[in-house]
Amino acid sequence: MATINNNYLKLKAGYLFPEIARRVNTFAQANPDAPIIRLGIGDVTEPLPVACRTAMTNAIEDMGDRSKFKGYGPEQGYAWLREAIATNDFQSRGCDIDASEIFISDGSKCDCGNILDIFGHDNTIAVTDPVYPVYVDTNVMAGNTGDANDKGEYGGLVYLPITAENDFTAQIPSQKVDLIYLCFPNNPTGATATKAHLQAWVDYAKANGSIIFFDAAYEAFITDPSLPHSIYEIDGARDCAIEFRSFSKNAGFTGTRCALTVVPKTLTAKAADGSDVELWKLWNRRQSTKFNGVSYIVQRGAEAVYSPEGKAQVKELINFYMENAQIIRKELTAAGLQVFGGINAPYVWVKTPDGLSSWEFFDKLLTNCFVVGTPGSGFGAAGEGYFRISAFNSRANVETAMQRIADKFKV
Amino acid sequence: MATINNNYLKLKAGYLFPEIARRVNTFAQANPDAPIIRLGIGDVTEPLPVACRTAMTNAIEDMGDRSKFKGYGPEQGYAWLREAIATNDFQSRGCDIDASEIFISDGSKCDCGNILDIFGHDNTIAVTDPVYPVYVDTNVMAGNTGDANDKGEYGGLVYLPITAENDFTAQIPSQKVDLIYLCFPNNPTGATATKAHLQAWVDYAKANGSIIFFDAAYEAFITDPSLPHSIYEIDGARDCAIEFRSFSKNAGFTGTRCALTVVPKTLTAKAADGSDVELWKLWNRRQSTKFNGVSYIVQRGAEAVYSPEGKAQVKELINFYMENAQIIRKELTAAGLQVFGGINAPYVWVKTPDGLSSWEFFDKLLTNCFVVGTPGSGFGAAGEGYFRISAFNSRANVETAMQRIADKFKV
Repeated sequence: MATINNNYLKLKAGYLFPEIARRVNTFAQANPDAPIIRLGIGDVTEPLPVACRTAMTNAIEDMGDRSKFKGYGPEQGYAWLREAIATNDFQSRGCDIDASEIFISDGSKCDCGNILDIFGHDNTIAVTDPVYPVYVDTNVMAGNTGDANDKGEYGGLVYLPITAENDFTAQIPSQKVDLIYLCFPNNPTGATATKAHLQAWVDYAKANGSIIFFDAAYEAFITDPSLPHSIYEIDGARDCAIEFRSFSKNAGFTGTRCALTVVPKTLTAKAADGSDVELWKLWNRRQSTKFNGVSYIVQRGAEAVYSPEGKAQVKELINFYMENAQIIRKELTAAGLQVFGGINAPYVWVKTPDGLSSWEFFDKLLTNCFVVGTPGSGFGAAGEGYFRISAFNSRANVETAMQRIADKFKV
Repeated sequence: MATINNNYLKLKAGYLFPEIARRVNTFAQANPDAPIIRLGIGDVTEPLPVACRTAMTNAIEDMGDRSKFKGYGPEQGYAWLREAIATNDFQSRGCDIDASEIFISDGSKCDCGNILDIFGHDNTIAVTDPVYPVYVDTNVMAGNTGDANDKGEYGGLVYLPITAENDFTAQIPSQKVDLIYLCFPNNPTGATATKAHLQAWVDYAKANGSIIFFDAAYEAFITDPSLPHSIYEIDGARDCAIEFRSFSKNAGFTGTRCALTVVPKTLTAKAADGSDVELWKLWNRRQSTKFNGVSYIVQRGAEAVYSPEGKAQVKELINFYMENAQIIRKELTAAGLQVFGGINAPYVWVKTPDGLSSWEFFDKLLTNCFVVGTPGSGFGAAGEGYFRISAFNSRANVETAMQRIADKFKV
């Protein structure tokens, strides 16, 4: 009799985004004329850079020419893309990362989940709270947690609160943890990490033999030149950190699909016999066996992000969304709301007014302003009383949404 | 101290295709002028159908138009692609499969490995021998096996030999197994399964509460109209089978990346408390959490496979490769070799002559004929003494390779 992975039954049924979709649909059906504006999910809205489109169109032509046709590519990605990334994203910032340490994939979400394949089930795992739900759910699925309590916290995980009280800084835990998820610029709070803060994490990890999973999906939105874009800007990070990056949010690839994961060859973890095993070798074997590479066409599109035209067009996209973020910050502040983030990240993290819960504020914004955001409590217990507004939308939609909120909340 | 997944250390280092690459490279370096022809790896060589290229070029234009731009798509794939597949690949052959039961992915290799995520580690697993190595290796990684013996067989797995002695038919095991991998038309042997044979498997699975993983990646190469293309052509299969399909081999998508997995909503397996759990719900949750869908551009290319032009162009591709297979069969037979497969599959399975081992024959073909094939023993212990020749190459290369073999082996 075939049996299931019972860990799946521990997952809480009410996942955040389906619940948002349910409430929005119910409201929209009852109010078919309400001009709803969605600032909830972190999905881009503006066209793909023309440099990427041109490169992909040319790649499709290659696929029609027998002499240029591409069948199976390297599971790790094409060398020309890995080289472009190594040079532009890492070496240009002083990071000692080689192209061979970069693995191209179809999504950071996939890699953040799949990376657990190469680790043991006896690791103690730390996540921030609030946190991107995928980190937690994939650990539940892998059997790395116990059951959830009433607040939605899973047994066995170490939760590190990031709230206004600690200035949205992920505190170094007093206990020993083996795997640590960090995301800066942070989703959902928009908070950032200074070099000194990341140095403290690297020092902790090296002292404890821990591995940091560093999610840098939003690095392109950093405006403060003193902030690190990569954890490999920190001394010692090559010995303790894996970094996840994506073309989703900088070049608008959420529907095009390309990402990358950096696994330095100097990283090791312990086997059962106490020996040190290179994580690069394990991840390379994992990807070679369970993955077949990203579409040649899409990899050519990603490569174009590093052309002079591509760089200029990506910068323009980023500036556009960050202007949205400035408008959101300004208007919400003028409306008397307390806001965080939105300066080095495309997310504004709002303290709910009048002691409203995250979901109460969600319902109020939806029914009174026809604006959809994301309840902070959906990202973890410490997100209760907060609310995420995304800067990913058209200028007109952002301005209209903010005007409606200002009209309702301004005293 | 972070620990690794120790199961990875059980994997045999000498994976088949890297070892082939190593031997070919060594030979090529010593003989730089040798005109090597590769009939080893099962990778397509001919251009993508023009219908697919046109559809993808149009999709890139959509991505440049704000009103048609696509961000995150459904993790399960777009409805228009799932509908086209349900109608054309399944309902047209009388299979009761709904579009909602079809999950679009970036590769069958990924899905064949990832499917294990939703199953328990206490299942008894059966594979044929020889077999596509990914089925075995992903079970090793997941901790579903013991160590390998000298023949490369992993403890805990049930091996079902398919050889000339049993007419390349996967025998129903006498013991109870919970998960069974079947691939027809078969990689590597090119063997097929009749409806009666698959009915026996479905009856066995239903009687034992087993789940069949049916890999139909090569169904497009079936020429015999009596053979089933899908396991869902068999009564009862909706209650016991998951099917994997791909656009890689029919439409030449090995470098473009698109595949699909069918999980009927009627499938269940046992939870620890003895209850029946719907596998569709688990797989849907797995894909929603650990996957973000296939590129919109690529999905539009896959959809075009079902247009009238696409269907005609795919048929032409298949016919081309199958003519290659006929040439291979004819010439090898004329050279006195015993051949199997190649009639309903793009692989010809050759009995090595003169009692040569698979690797001895590999070396002989490489050094004497400059032709690369795949040693049967690389697919499992029962593949020893066999050799796989792929029909994926240009007509000129196939004819030249066969001429060289005929010259060496003809008596």
